[in-house]
Amino acid sequence: MTTDFLVGQIRKKESFLCIGLDTDLDKVPKHLLKEEDPIFAFNKAIIDATHHLCVAYKPNTAFYEAYGIKGWQALEKTINYLNINYPEIFTIADAKRGDIGNTSTRYAKAFFEDLGFDSVTIAPYMGRDSVEPFLAFKDKHTILLALTSNMGAFDFQTKMVDGKELYKQVLEISKTYENSENLMYVVGATKATFLTEIRNIIPNSFLLVPGVGVQGGSLAEVCRYGMSDNVGLLVNSSRGIIYASDQDNFAQASAEKAKELQQEMSLELKKR
Amino acid sequence: MTTDFLVGQIRKKESFLCIGLDTDLDKVPKHLLKEEDPIFAFNKAIIDATHHLCVAYKPNTAFYEAYGIKGWQALEKTINYLNINYPEIFTIADAKRGDIGNTSTRYAKAFFEDLGFDSVTIAPYMGRDSVEPFLAFKDKHTILLALTSNMGAFDFQTKMVDGKELYKQVLEISKTYENSENLMYVVGATKATFLTEIRNIIPNSFLLVPGVGVQGGSLAEVCRYGMSDNVGLLVNSSRGIIYASDQDNFAQASAEKAKELQQEMSLELKKR
Repeated sequence: MTTDFLVGQIRKKESFLCIGLDTDLDKVPKHLLKEEDPIFAFNKAIIDATHHLCVAYKPNTAFYEAYGIKGWQALEKTINYLNINYPEIFTIADAKRGDIGNTSTRYAKAFFEDLGFDSVTIAPYMGRDSVEPFLAFKDKHTILLALTSNMGAFDFQTKMVDGKELYKQVLEISKTYENSENLMYVVGATKATFLTEIRNIIPNSFLLVPGVGVQGGSLAEVCRYGMSDNVGLLVNSSRGIIYASDQDNFAQASAEKAKELQQEMSLELKKR
Repeated sequence: MTTDFLVGQIRKKESFLCIGLDTDLDKVPKHLLKEEDPIFAFNKAIIDATHHLCVAYKPNTAFYEAYGIKGWQALEKTINYLNINYPEIFTIADAKRGDIGNTSTRYAKAFFEDLGFDSVTIAPYMGRDSVEPFLAFKDKHTILLALTSNMGAFDFQTKMVDGKELYKQVLEISKTYENSENLMYVVGATKATFLTEIRNIIPNSFLLVPGVGVQGGSLAEVCRYGMSDNVGLLVNSSRGIIYASDQDNFAQASAEKAKELQQEMSLELKKR
């Protein structure tokens, strides 16, 4: 998917919502457990109920790997279902991979070609030759971890490197990578100061922002300091939407939660 | 597996060789492609031919994910085969994972409990709460990327942070993590100066050293500056061993290559 198409979808749906499909069999409604593939049954119901309110879905691969072969089958079914029924949706494999060149190419093929995801999240620690193999795929997007929203982010990401925090070095240095126009960034910051400084370095890149919703963080603040001319934001919510209810009406309940966020987003888009 | 058991195996076999099972269907002998599961058939033959010469096997998960469900099945069969037939072998899932707490726990369960690996490689970028969920598993080992052997290592890992290279900060800070005794480190350095400095920070931790063999790097140098009182080294070779031949005799050829390294290692162990 091209970035222009994604921006068009955001304008059309008045939404830059990404729904995290972190599907956990301990949390899905009990009646689904008798289905042949409860993970896929859950995802399908959530997707059917919410696809018009969001522009992206983001399965975190850990949740699928945790169920072994069955989990991978559910992931394959989910991405296939999205690509066939809702090809206008931007899909993110939240895999946080990263390996040396030859091996990165294998991961890139697996996620971009075999599974058919539009994008994948990547850890930056191994540097240029671990990232560029992903960037080589046309109209596919590599979402680099810059500043994450967990406490551990302060261990290394915010440490000063040559007078600048490490996560800013990641932003700066990755701009020099070949095909860097295919980069997006995970930015867990919801604080104004962080976002302003990040936008000084990457004025137009898309930011994938976790941490709005259940994890706290203000959507208005993120929009005020993080929105770019082409919107440039995908704001993710996982648990707050998909686990809105564990009853028969779970899909409808998730749609209501998604609708609340979409309406807030619609207002933010109209402010600009 | 306990570290003591691993050290005992190293002493007994006079080997600290780890064989990387980076199995690529473009490179395996052609006659295997008619097998029902050529990846597993290849791995099984290599393992049967080399298990007495090495102490560890390290499948890189990218090579398996690249083949989708079939790849994961081959990975499961490989680790099961190792655990049933050669339980004395230390197994490493070279997965380079890393995610926030809750999600890391899922990865840890997948690799340690469901698949039954002894260890997994982890990227440090997300910090403490992305690593500690792995460290919580008794007699399981978390192999943290410190200094990798690729060019991209110079993008961030060797940058100065508070007067010390980032990879050294990773070594220092990770020592403060809960259950840090379960940490090992990927150290791609084969240069004396690097290894000496690393050993000053972590005198006893096991180092997983890639880059000896095909990628160059001297075993003697690694041993001289990297070996600790409990050996503390696992030296990996992948392509140099497993692709020694693409003919019918491939397994025997791989054993010969493994034997060469084992004999060098035996001499190094005797020097101390």
